[in-house]
Amino acid sequence: MNHSLKIYCAGPIRGDLRHVESYYQIVALVWQLGHTPLTELALSETEAAKASDKDIFLRDLQWLQQADALVAEVSGPSLGVGYEIAYALHALTIPVLCVRKHSSNELSAMITGNFSRQLTIKEYLSGQELDQIVKEFLKDLESDR
Amino acid sequence: MNHSLKIYCAGPIRGDLRHVESYYQIVALVWQLGHTPLTELALSETEAAKASDKDIFLRDLQWLQQADALVAEVSGPSLGVGYEIAYALHALTIPVLCVRKHSSNELSAMITGNFSRQLTIKEYLSGQELDQIVKEFLKDLESDR
Repeated sequence: MNHSLKIYCAGPIRGDLRHVESYYQIVALVWQLGHTPLTELALSETEAAKASDKDIFLRDLQWLQQADALVAEVSGPSLGVGYEIAYALHALTIPVLCVRKHSSNELSAMITGNFSRQLTIKEYLSGQELDQIVKEFLKDLESDR
Repeated sequence: MNHSLKIYCAGPIRGDLRHVESYYQIVALVWQLGHTPLTELALSETEAAKASDKDIFLRDLQWLQQADALVAEVSGPSLGVGYEIAYALHALTIPVLCVRKHSSNELSAMITGNFSRQLTIKEYLSGQELDQIVKEFLKDLESDR
């Protein structure tokens, strides 16, 4: 496949882990569709374990700088995910998809009220719907190339 | 007082409210020291209630653009607070103080591993210590003017 995109996948790793399965699902789907997910989950456990907080910060910023787009699971609150969304929109101006489980916590107005043209926010009810949303976003990205 | 600084105060308003008292304390202290806290808490209830999410997003971004610095309570996870920290550091490059209650949740590596020269991270044990940290940060800001 020669339409391979680099997709930074953001989701809570520390903190609120109630929606971590959806995050795993996003990463797996990006991979299955022939794209490259940029995420700590793609590292070996040894690699991930030996990274200091500074290593993680630098690596995540560099991954974001290489990424064609960011997909973020935002059903739970997270300082890191909020940070990455703002960095992607304001410093890099790359497309951002925020996906959120229907009936999860009330979302920050910095996301729901954000009228950046680069930002798409979608709610999902099921894993199947989540797959569909991510697939469409990636398809649109490919056709915009 | 003619050293009045505009300080954007960030803290969880939706979501995890366990540390909201510390946020109130920061806002009150900034005010008592003769500076201007930029925060929804300074608005009347009617003004705050009638703002749509788009109004909030735009208002908060404009406040950040006017601010001399950002003080953020980061003891709990929050997409909005993470967003504001990244915007302040990367889009505005203004000084940011993150304060965090000792023994609160593990903090994101996007904060703890962040080696931006504009970022200061401090832990507090008591309300008195929190006051001291914020006072020193504001004093340093004034002497840098």
